[in-house]
Amino acid sequence: MGAEAEQRGDDEAERGTVVTPSAEFPPLDPEERAALGRIGDHWQEPRRPDDLPVDPTLGRNRRRPAPTRFGRLAPIEMFTVEQPDELVATEPAHLPGNRAGRAATKLRRVLFGPPLSSAAVLYERMRKLVAVPILSSDVLSSVAYGPEALLTVLVLAGSGGLGLSLPLAAILVLMMIAVGVSYRQTIPAYPHGAGSYIVAGDNLGRTAGLTAAAGLMLDYVLTVSVSVAAGVGAVTSAVPGLAPTSVLLGVLVIAVLLAGNLRGVRTAGNIFVLPTYAFVAAVLAVLVVGYARAASRGFTPVPPPAVPAAEGLGLLLVLRAFSSGAVSMTGIEAVSNAVPAFRPTEWRNARTSLSWMIATLATLFAGLVGLIHLDGLVPRSDQTILSQLGRVTFPTGPWYAFLQATTALILLLAANTAFNDFPRLLFFMARDGHAPRRFLHMGDRLAFSNGLVALAGSAALIFVAFGGHTESLIPLYAVGVFLAFTLSQTGMVVHWRRHQGPGWRRRLALNAVGAVLSGLVLITAAVAKFSEGAWLVVVAVPLLVLLFRRIHRHYATLHHALALYPPPAAGPAPAARPRGPAGSSEGEELPQEVRHLVVVPMARLNRASLRALAYGVSLGQPTLAVHIAPEEVEADRFREQWCAWGDHVRLETVVSPYRSVIGPLAHYLEALHATRPDLTLTVIVPEVVLRRRRHRLLHSRAEQRLRAALRALPGVVVTSVPVHVSE
Amino acid sequence: MGAEAEQRGDDEAERGTVVTPSAEFPPLDPEERAALGRIGDHWQEPRRPDDLPVDPTLGRNRRRPAPTRFGRLAPIEMFTVEQPDELVATEPAHLPGNRAGRAATKLRRVLFGPPLSSAAVLYERMRKLVAVPILSSDVLSSVAYGPEALLTVLVLAGSGGLGLSLPLAAILVLMMIAVGVSYRQTIPAYPHGAGSYIVAGDNLGRTAGLTAAAGLMLDYVLTVSVSVAAGVGAVTSAVPGLAPTSVLLGVLVIAVLLAGNLRGVRTAGNIFVLPTYAFVAAVLAVLVVGYARAASRGFTPVPPPAVPAAEGLGLLLVLRAFSSGAVSMTGIEAVSNAVPAFRPTEWRNARTSLSWMIATLATLFAGLVGLIHLDGLVPRSDQTILSQLGRVTFPTGPWYAFLQATTALILLLAANTAFNDFPRLLFFMARDGHAPRRFLHMGDRLAFSNGLVALAGSAALIFVAFGGHTESLIPLYAVGVFLAFTLSQTGMVVHWRRHQGPGWRRRLALNAVGAVLSGLVLITAAVAKFSEGAWLVVVAVPLLVLLFRRIHRHYATLHHALALYPPPAAGPAPAARPRGPAGSSEGEELPQEVRHLVVVPMARLNRASLRALAYGVSLGQPTLAVHIAPEEVEADRFREQWCAWGDHVRLETVVSPYRSVIGPLAHYLEALHATRPDLTLTVIVPEVVLRRRRHRLLHSRAEQRLRAALRALPGVVVTSVPVHVSE
Repeated sequence: MGAEAEQRGDDEAERGTVVTPSAEFPPLDPEERAALGRIGDHWQEPRRPDDLPVDPTLGRNRRRPAPTRFGRLAPIEMFTVEQPDELVATEPAHLPGNRAGRAATKLRRVLFGPPLSSAAVLYERMRKLVAVPILSSDVLSSVAYGPEALLTVLVLAGSGGLGLSLPLAAILVLMMIAVGVSYRQTIPAYPHGAGSYIVAGDNLGRTAGLTAAAGLMLDYVLTVSVSVAAGVGAVTSAVPGLAPTSVLLGVLVIAVLLAGNLRGVRTAGNIFVLPTYAFVAAVLAVLVVGYARAASRGFTPVPPPAVPAAEGLGLLLVLRAFSSGAVSMTGIEAVSNAVPAFRPTEWRNARTSLSWMIATLATLFAGLVGLIHLDGLVPRSDQTILSQLGRVTFPTGPWYAFLQATTALILLLAANTAFNDFPRLLFFMARDGHAPRRFLHMGDRLAFSNGLVALAGSAALIFVAFGGHTESLIPLYAVGVFLAFTLSQTGMVVHWRRHQGPGWRRRLALNAVGAVLSGLVLITAAVAKFSEGAWLVVVAVPLLVLLFRRIHRHYATLHHALALYPPPAAGPAPAARPRGPAGSSEGEELPQEVRHLVVVPMARLNRASLRALAYGVSLGQPTLAVHIAPEEVEADRFREQWCAWGDHVRLETVVSPYRSVIGPLAHYLEALHATRPDLTLTVIVPEVVLRRRRHRLLHSRAEQRLRAALRALPGVVVTSVPVHVSE
Repeated sequence: MGAEAEQRGDDEAERGTVVTPSAEFPPLDPEERAALGRIGDHWQEPRRPDDLPVDPTLGRNRRRPAPTRFGRLAPIEMFTVEQPDELVATEPAHLPGNRAGRAATKLRRVLFGPPLSSAAVLYERMRKLVAVPILSSDVLSSVAYGPEALLTVLVLAGSGGLGLSLPLAAILVLMMIAVGVSYRQTIPAYPHGAGSYIVAGDNLGRTAGLTAAAGLMLDYVLTVSVSVAAGVGAVTSAVPGLAPTSVLLGVLVIAVLLAGNLRGVRTAGNIFVLPTYAFVAAVLAVLVVGYARAASRGFTPVPPPAVPAAEGLGLLLVLRAFSSGAVSMTGIEAVSNAVPAFRPTEWRNARTSLSWMIATLATLFAGLVGLIHLDGLVPRSDQTILSQLGRVTFPTGPWYAFLQATTALILLLAANTAFNDFPRLLFFMARDGHAPRRFLHMGDRLAFSNGLVALAGSAALIFVAFGGHTESLIPLYAVGVFLAFTLSQTGMVVHWRRHQGPGWRRRLALNAVGAVLSGLVLITAAVAKFSEGAWLVVVAVPLLVLLFRRIHRHYATLHHALALYPPPAAGPAPAARPRGPAGSSEGEELPQEVRHLVVVPMARLNRASLRALAYGVSLGQPTLAVHIAPEEVEADRFREQWCAWGDHVRLETVVSPYRSVIGPLAHYLEALHATRPDLTLTVIVPEVVLRRRRHRLLHSRAEQRLRAALRALPGVVVTSVPVHVSE
């Protein structure tokens, strides 16, 4: 069951690295536990708990024959008994009660598979051979556009500028290795997986963590829409007939990715393993054949075609080219984020995977830039560099088609990486109260469904808004991702200075190099691409941070208000404690301090209102009936009926000469409450339950409107007594 | 106060002619009253009603100084005492409690005036001089297009066909008189006002009444959109610059009509009195001057310009021309509908008004057709016949403009007539359960706001859907209106045969003539115009009747289900009686028969959940706490906290390994209830009340979802304990 693993990880879980369905129910802090005991000491229960009129275990503790296997005849077992006083809900018990909801749930299960038990959370792990393609697809796919992004800028300075591609590529490869080595240090330090959000937040403070998170979130959303756009573009350039439907196609692809991920991590992995290996194989084939051919002519570069210079070869141009090429590095941090998805020993497997990944990335990137140089290729608007290289290397045969197909597939896989990371990031943020708490919830299939849907939704929105032409956004996400890199590695520097484990000086140095290099790329990208759209990221990140802080403030206030005798220091503002009117029943937590008055509003005398009245009276508390009449005539008539009934309950009549019902009733209850603020008013309203939704149009929904009007009154409890009508 | 009038009218009120705000609270029938007493005899109240912890009269029975007039310092008097045990809500008590609702109400009062007390219902009456313009505007406005509609068809047979206009007009004038005389018989027979719906329903049965109502409803909606279109057309042809905004203009006009009518009947009348008289004066002026000129040339007709014949002068063409001309009669029944809006003696005033109206109508119609013949005018596409006549009669001077302006105004007034009649018709239908009950509600200003809004909404919808060109719908409404005429007058024939008062034979004969003539027009219109759009009415009327019957069936079933021990004969289907599971608490109406079990679902231990628990325990009934946990680990942790608190209440844990909460909880409660169906389960849920709406996005609204899931379970009562949080 992994319970011991969870126990062991409890400390880290507090700091934030274990993914568990119990995160929705955070444990009490020590002050609260102490307060709990104090509250319990004052509690006087009016009767013993063992005189319940029912057996809450549903009679399952008694021995009885096991249910037969004969389907329809055997009762469906909704609950099984694991321990005394503990029932376990079976799968049928999770189906909604109404027919529409049940049909929806069944459809969902057909699409996404049967539900997975919480106990399965540890088994949804990945072997290295599966993990590497899933996690590295983002970073490897970027070799499909990284070299081109570099050259596209350089060629603006004419053919002469292209000569700079080799030194820039060399610097980028060095950076890849430096950043990779730097992340290798992070993995064992955070063996339960830690993205930039956690590392930066832990070591540099909350704002740094949120800034990194904001950068990453933008990056993930952009990754999905950009990769899908590029992938769809690869398909439509191969099959031009599909071009008019490219927006629809892209949305469909996003939907398929969403569906795959809603099925759960492992299945998603299995679907996507092959294409990554195929892409790597295809590019390696290009490299081997290409270099062999170049070797046959003594590595003499083919001179590139003359291209007129559009700009001078200035520093800004070189910086732009460099930061464009740096998009090849996006996705490096995927592995350190996803450590817990590896099989044990997680950190060791993760670190090995990272090394493989960096090595592959550097090889492919350097090899491609070198081969492009040797073949004298320049970026063209009608064909990608990789496609040109494919055509030069494999002029005939199916190899070119294979290269293009695997390129398209790995771009889709890159989008899938974001589907792995985005919900996980939101989970960590939600656990800290920086994101809506619903992102803590694990769906049927142990996936963070809400996060997945949020990612797919925003990516599809951007994709549709840009009409499927999101390639122009590619340079943008360098800013977000290097923001996260820089903060994460700076955080690691602080981490080593604080913890000083064995070899900390070396690790600190490695992380410091990574941080400085990432920081330089960040500044370069933000400055050089500011007017090309990076300003958007520069504006959006602080706004997101502000939003996260607002969300956190709300949850903190709420937690403070609801905490058991909150300690004076906790929470942001002591003024935020809930204060009802003095002496109001708002402050009560002890049953013996609750004083009741039951109020039953009566519109007319029928079975529904008499049932509500009987229910109210049967509670054994003082009861008052109130009738709201639009006219004296009606008030008199009702009082007369009341006497005919026997006048068993005190009736108060309120004439409402302006004919509204809810307003005067709410004000009357408020006035009543004001005369004795220590009373808890229980307002009992009959609710006629109609089976058909369209029939609700024929009713005024007074019950709902009354509930809404009374919501704001402290110390007023609303009880609906359902009355079922079969039509 | 009019109480005695209401008492006197009680019998008729049962049959349906008095408009009163108390109609929302129908009285009990004798069987129900008897059952009420029997139920009361069995009722055993646990304590006397006089031990209430508060004074339900809010201490107002005690003498105390009257509140001062010094505005802010004096407390707002929300309630005053009229009788012992009876409070009267003052105007401020009708304001909603929340700020947005209060602002909306205040805005509404600025627009539509301060609220009117129910006691004012009798004072909203009309003098004849006011009533005639309001009620006759519909019928009089039709002379603006009636003659033209007649001639437009005849001219299809060429200039020769125009000669038929005089005999056809003569027949139509005879019909007007016959129908008018026929309606004069209706008014004293139904002194509280009765439209075709009531007369036909009373005498010919429910379906006949509903058919008449459906025809009239279509007619009213068409009247508004057609009249507004014609009125706006008159304005835009005078000021062509406004033409592009004609749709907006029309919607605005409908909105102004709605607003005027929401203010209440009398104000609406005062606004609109002058234009009707002005229109009549303008047309009379045209007639006087025109005939004087014709007399000067010895009444020799000017030969009409030669128009080529498009069709042969067949019977169908003549019938079409006749039924087109018959639209001049729409609106005749307005007076008999609105008898109670007259000052006493209502029926006498109403009958006099009807006579004036018919006389005016016949004069104007006959005069116009004759003058058109004398002046040799033919319909033209660029100008109305009335406008041509105006130009011929008043070649210069402001008289022509005056004629056009009053024409536009009276067309708007015609639309206003529908605003008077449509909500009243819906009120009668709703009281019989044939329309949604909300149409019984009188708004702040004693107007049937819901009916007014429904009319304005449908008319605006049609207006916008046809882009403001609804003139082509004019011939359509002959079908609906003559359907109602025919049914109403046939109903009167049956009425006289049944009642046989003094002179009944004469009255019967008059009504029979009216009925036969109306029926002939109805058949003529339906057949001759079937392909021009009358098929729409022919299809819509039965569908509407079906809808009304469905609505009635729903209310009847509901009434039957909720009635106190319903007699076996009443209600449509005995199978419709509510049947919970055998022995369920659904059947309870006596407090001593209710057995309680209080269930408190606990998600975590905090002030909110402990407050709910304390509230539940304080009711003094057996109480059970239920915790739903996603994992064993969490279940154990919660149980441990529960023991730390003191284990005062029996706790049952349900592990939900598929992580949903609502489903297993609902199924658990259902299973619990199944073990003891006689128990009433009270489920107590804390409801954290957030002040800001946007913060609700951050919460899962589990309370609402649980309420929705438990709605369908019989015998399960849901109680929300509000917990207020100041942020």
